Amino acid sequence: MIKVGIIGVGTVGTSVVKILQKNRDIITARAGKEIRPVFGVVKNLNRDRGVDIPLSDSVDDVLNDEEIDVVVELMGGVDDAFKVVKKALAKGKAVVTANKAMLAYHRYELQQSANRQPIGFEASVAGGIPIIKALREGLSANHIVSIKGIMNGTCNYMLTKMMSDGVEFDEILKEAQELGYAEADPSFDVGGYDAAHKLLILASIAYGIDAKPEDILIEGIENINSEDIFFANEFGYNIKLLTIAKKSGDSVELRVHPALIDKKEMIAKVDGVMNGVSVIGDCVGETMYYGPGAGGDATASSVIADLIDIARNGNNSPMLGFKKILKNDILKLKKADEIFTKYYIRLIVEDKIGVLSKISNILGKQNISIGSFLQKQSKDAKFATLLFSTHKCYEKDVQIAMKEIGECDFVKQKPAMIRIED
Amino acid sequence: MIKVGIIGVGTVGTSVVKILQKNRDIITARAGKEIRPVFGVVKNLNRDRGVDIPLSDSVDDVLNDEEIDVVVELMGGVDDAFKVVKKALAKGKAVVTANKAMLAYHRYELQQSANRQPIGFEASVAGGIPIIKALREGLSANHIVSIKGIMNGTCNYMLTKMMSDGVEFDEILKEAQELGYAEADPSFDVGGYDAAHKLLILASIAYGIDAKPEDILIEGIENINSEDIFFANEFGYNIKLLTIAKKSGDSVELRVHPALIDKKEMIAKVDGVMNGVSVIGDCVGETMYYGPGAGGDATASSVIADLIDIARNGNNSPMLGFKKILKNDILKLKKADEIFTKYYIRLIVEDKIGVLSKISNILGKQNISIGSFLQKQSKDAKFATLLFSTHKCYEKDVQIAMKEIGECDFVKQKPAMIRIED
Repeated sequence: MIKVGIIGVGTVGTSVVKILQKNRDIITARAGKEIRPVFGVVKNLNRDRGVDIPLSDSVDDVLNDEEIDVVVELMGGVDDAFKVVKKALAKGKAVVTANKAMLAYHRYELQQSANRQPIGFEASVAGGIPIIKALREGLSANHIVSIKGIMNGTCNYMLTKMMSDGVEFDEILKEAQELGYAEADPSFDVGGYDAAHKLLILASIAYGIDAKPEDILIEGIENINSEDIFFANEFGYNIKLLTIAKKSGDSVELRVHPALIDKKEMIAKVDGVMNGVSVIGDCVGETMYYGPGAGGDATASSVIADLIDIARNGNNSPMLGFKKILKNDILKLKKADEIFTKYYIRLIVEDKIGVLSKISNILGKQNISIGSFLQKQSKDAKFATLLFSTHKCYEKDVQIAMKEIGECDFVKQKPAMIRIED
Repeated sequence: MIKVGIIGVGTVGTSVVKILQKNRDIITARAGKEIRPVFGVVKNLNRDRGVDIPLSDSVDDVLNDEEIDVVVELMGGVDDAFKVVKKALAKGKAVVTANKAMLAYHRYELQQSANRQPIGFEASVAGGIPIIKALREGLSANHIVSIKGIMNGTCNYMLTKMMSDGVEFDEILKEAQELGYAEADPSFDVGGYDAAHKLLILASIAYGIDAKPEDILIEGIENINSEDIFFANEFGYNIKLLTIAKKSGDSVELRVHPALIDKKEMIAKVDGVMNGVSVIGDCVGETMYYGPGAGGDATASSVIADLIDIARNGNNSPMLGFKKILKNDILKLKKADEIFTKYYIRLIVEDKIGVLSKISNILGKQNISIGSFLQKQSKDAKFATLLFSTHKCYEKDVQIAMKEIGECDFVKQKPAMIRIED
């Protein structure tokens, strides 16, 4: 039997306990031994969790219990959780965690802290989708060409609704909050930070690269409006908050931002609260993984899969996918202004002669050429909305052009830009 | 270092050798040691394989070579391959195989033959998609509610083309043969047998059930015509060759046949030669896995993933997912005539008064009620094509009704039926 202590018995923790009990027979048959939740730690002992295991409000009750083989860390937060997990490892316990924020900062230290014990973290990325396992083990023969992920259900729900119903950001945010898909403070989700944490974990497994959230480009979906949705629908795109990892030569691009994607791509078909991750490998080509990225039971499915791996006597794959450090093959992080892609740009300008030529001039100076173009009359007849895409160009040049255009007196609103991922 | 002998150096074998050499550095970094292809066995030594490893035409040269740690079996066929693999296991070698036909018949015997050595078979199902790993390890916490797979690229290419271009089966088969997507003798693919082998392997991992191809319903796509495509498009369906495993109570349905699927379902969006497998688990809900189901490099990606698992010192998961036999929970195979689903039926009848009422009578006697209905004039004005779907009913009743309708003198052609999977 494997005895499990759970630190943090909230939505996911409760599901872990209940599923271990409800599916005990089949889990035992698959794992070869029973996996029993024996203890839980909560902040507030007065709230009923609906689980029939002993609870305490002291982490030490789990850490010091020599009977407990595995600590499941579901407390959240970065540094406190890291301390708890390190202590558990020091005590010789295996660890399973769903804590993406902690891993975004401390995954390499954790890998070093483990003294042969397994550390499972399938639940930290894309909830119930076994993407860690697919990338680390299933695709291990491949140089990973790219990873494109839709890994925040809140954003995907909102963007899907905006695309289908044409509603504005603020309205759909309120609705998402009422449905429980968005937090009271939604900035962590809609700002792209949650997705970024997940991307960094996948990037380590794909590339062995140790990047922190501060090192990469992170943009949220707050500025997407109905004009952008209109353009996207008109030209056959969906708008998604995309996490992107891409290798070219000896460098890796890591970025999180809204992107226009061709509706025909498989990843563009991932709608609503669902998550999807498309991985291109140099041998396999494209594979895609789709499923629920959040929710108590779906996330618990991944937590328990890690527990079963441990019970089966370990998955001996290295935590972050590499057994040796790639000395001759260390990849560097590409700077954000070196991004080379297509762009969509939205401008609101005075509707008068000469404006378009001035804008074309500014773009031309930066070697930016226009692909598709759409001009719409604004409600206020004095102004026009210009929506256009560019051919491939450098981010640095786009930023310079956007700044210069923004300073023109005929431009009514700060220019907006969305990258296009083909 | 791990030394690998490859039995069968065809398309996949050649890719395995070349990728192990080309991606040697990253594979070594991930696996912790080099994985080196050292020997190949081929039937015909005169054909150039374009690989720079020693070749022989004797299987024994690999089996008796004590230096060789792992045998990769890519020779195909059922019984000969099974003998070779058993000998390799008896010699203490680990085995990696892509041979779905052998596994469809001998997977449980193989599991017993292994004396702690790993047997990898990721490549046997859905080519480059790590579906074995996802199901056996990633979703191990779940009772599997259902698996719906598109696991034959030939059929999916043909059906996708028939849906988009409205061409008939024979024409598209010729095209697929010219493109190399279909064999000269296509019956193994278009008849559903290849997909059935893969389904049986997944069913073992999901349910611990030992079924053989002869035990299950297998129907191919040979009888799909443009009328069916017309109906499907009209009512929002795609037609796919679907492999279905479904649990209800203490029994499991396993079947392979063309099916109408709602275009909105994620699995319905898997087009062309690509494969996709949708798995519903009782905790996680629906996850889907998408990618190339065939091709040398894609299949080699899975073969090498298994080799890396072995080099990493073993994935200790039980070969077929269960460490113990589920004594109290042994599932029985549902009989084909107990299927309970919706049906689409195509009839060509004389266009005269009273025909529809006779057909309705026959259906009514079997408790079959009609959902959607479409009547089309045939080219020959004397005949009409009747296309309709039913509400949910029993396969047995549908078969009886189809037989009775087929015997009516006003019916011009044997009635055709496709199951609808919602």
